[in-house]
Amino acid sequence: MIVARTPVTVRYAETDMMGVVYHANYLPWFEMGRTVLLKDIGIAYRDLEAAGFRLPVLEVSARYLRPARYDDALEVTTVLRERPLVRIRLEYEVRRGDELLATGMTVHAFIDLQGGIVRPPAWVTQRFAEKLNDGKRGQVPNP
Amino acid sequence: MIVARTPVTVRYAETDMMGVVYHANYLPWFEMGRTVLLKDIGIAYRDLEAAGFRLPVLEVSARYLRPARYDDALEVTTVLRERPLVRIRLEYEVRRGDELLATGMTVHAFIDLQGGIVRPPAWVTQRFAEKLNDGKRGQVPNP
Amino acid sequence: MIVARTPVTVRYAETDMMGVVYHANYLPWFEMGRTVLLKDIGIAYRDLEAAGFRLPVLEVSARYLRPARYDDALEVTTVLRERPLVRIRLEYEVRRGDELLATGMTVHAFIDLQGGIVRPPAWVTQRFAEKLNDGKRGQVPNP
Amino acid sequence: MIVARTPVTVRYAETDMMGVVYHANYLPWFEMGRTVLLKDIGIAYRDLEAAGFRLPVLEVSARYLRPARYDDALEVTTVLRERPLVRIRLEYEVRRGDELLATGMTVHAFIDLQGGIVRPPAWVTQRFAEKLNDGKRGQVPNP
Repeated sequence: MIVARTPVTVRYAETDMMGVVYHANYLPWFEMGRTVLLKDIGIAYRDLEAAGFRLPVLEVSARYLRPARYDDALEVTTVLRERPLVRIRLEYEVRRGDELLATGMTVHAFIDLQGGIVRPPAWVTQRFAEKLNDGKRGQVPNP
Repeated sequence: MIVARTPVTVRYAETDMMGVVYHANYLPWFEMGRTVLLKDIGIAYRDLEAAGFRLPVLEVSARYLRPARYDDALEVTTVLRERPLVRIRLEYEVRRGDELLATGMTVHAFIDLQGGIVRPPAWVTQRFAEKLNDGKRGQVPNP
Repeated sequence: MIVARTPVTVRYAETDMMGVVYHANYLPWFEMGRTVLLKDIGIAYRDLEAAGFRLPVLEVSARYLRPARYDDALEVTTVLRERPLVRIRLEYEVRRGDELLATGMTVHAFIDLQGGIVRPPAWVTQRFAEKLNDGKRGQVPNP
Repeated sequence: MIVARTPVTVRYAETDMMGVVYHANYLPWFEMGRTVLLKDIGIAYRDLEAAGFRLPVLEVSARYLRPARYDDALEVTTVLRERPLVRIRLEYEVRRGDELLATGMTVHAFIDLQGGIVRPPAWVTQRFAEKLNDGKRGQVPNP
């Protein structure tokens, strides 16, 4: 298991006339969580794109339990449980202190510049394998 | 079954550096679809809010099959299959001509101004009942 | 003078907790106005990009006179007054019926794929010239 | 002069198909800068709204000098030069290290819940006066 934690402060732009964060605006927070998780294990998504890979979202879901509000200091927890083969599945939790506000999930595939699904480059596979094994040896990831 | 069709033209603002529409930007299209479906059966969501009701998103999911691109002329099909009691479940399909680009689903509940889950106002329940019965009598909704 | 008119229906996603449209969300409406103005005179911005040209925003300004609200049916009027040389300047007005809600302005330059400022392709220059001359001959543009 | 500095990391969601940040997405960064500047001088905008005041944007402008890109670590500098009376004018600079990417300006007015322009509450005026005087006495604001 690889875990990353990302702080988010709610922007006024992210609220809607219901006075709370518009539901679609949680998805970019998940995306920030992914970027940080990958960076934490030594994969800059930017470099991945520069190397000709893309990691589009094939599937997303979210459940909204309590509303987030303007200027809230939140934390997004991003979790990778399984070694990614062709697909990567990530899970998310959005918290304000101890309160769980929302949970989510995304599924991704590596594609090349022609849009075809491909295996990730070897160095990426290796980073995932190393970090997932670390976790299995009982180390606390990303304390 | 109640069905609504909503045209959408992709904005440049909705694309990302992958050259296609950013996945979160499909969710406002679903929202436009809901607004139109409700309006088609005589419920202006605006009036619903003015009457003290809110219909927040409790759950959302989407699957992305083919990318949408800038300036594409799309159609969002919004479907209500079951008579809503406390919860409303809506389904969505995004198409470019004959191509299915994405599917989605949202679950909503009626809440009052204090945020408590409530039954929808009687006139709303009635509109849904009438229209769902129409569908059962074999009429083609929203031709 | 070239004038284009573009209908916009306000999305819930575009509102903020003030209960009105968030100011930044007028800018994609201006962008829709530009797309339509160019298309009206035979220039698909999409083709322009496919031909290796980009038309980034160098400058933007907006004034907000009256708030736009969810589900409002608006019209964006986009105006090109001067024949574009290296720079293009466009003006915008957002109206709800007779009420003027906002005005705006953008300045653009043609750039190539390396990001250098370039002259627009000849066919583009010609379209602008033809249409601006039409206007001078007293025809009503885009009635 | 009151100065606030706000870090921003560019989200994938903020880019467009030109491969850089979409121009409208700088405006929420300005908003984050405002929130921080007010908070730095002891004014939580959230409390201001709770007290029945709104501070809408009446005017905005921005100039784009160099593109911002995905995952860039930026800094937004927000400056208040003049003591606000009925209107507040704020200026912004967006930098990536030493490079100036964009500048901007917003004008705001205090309005009450009915939308009428009002003077700011006394405690707000006082905070601004104190801090602007501090600056005049030669102290370095927000080091």
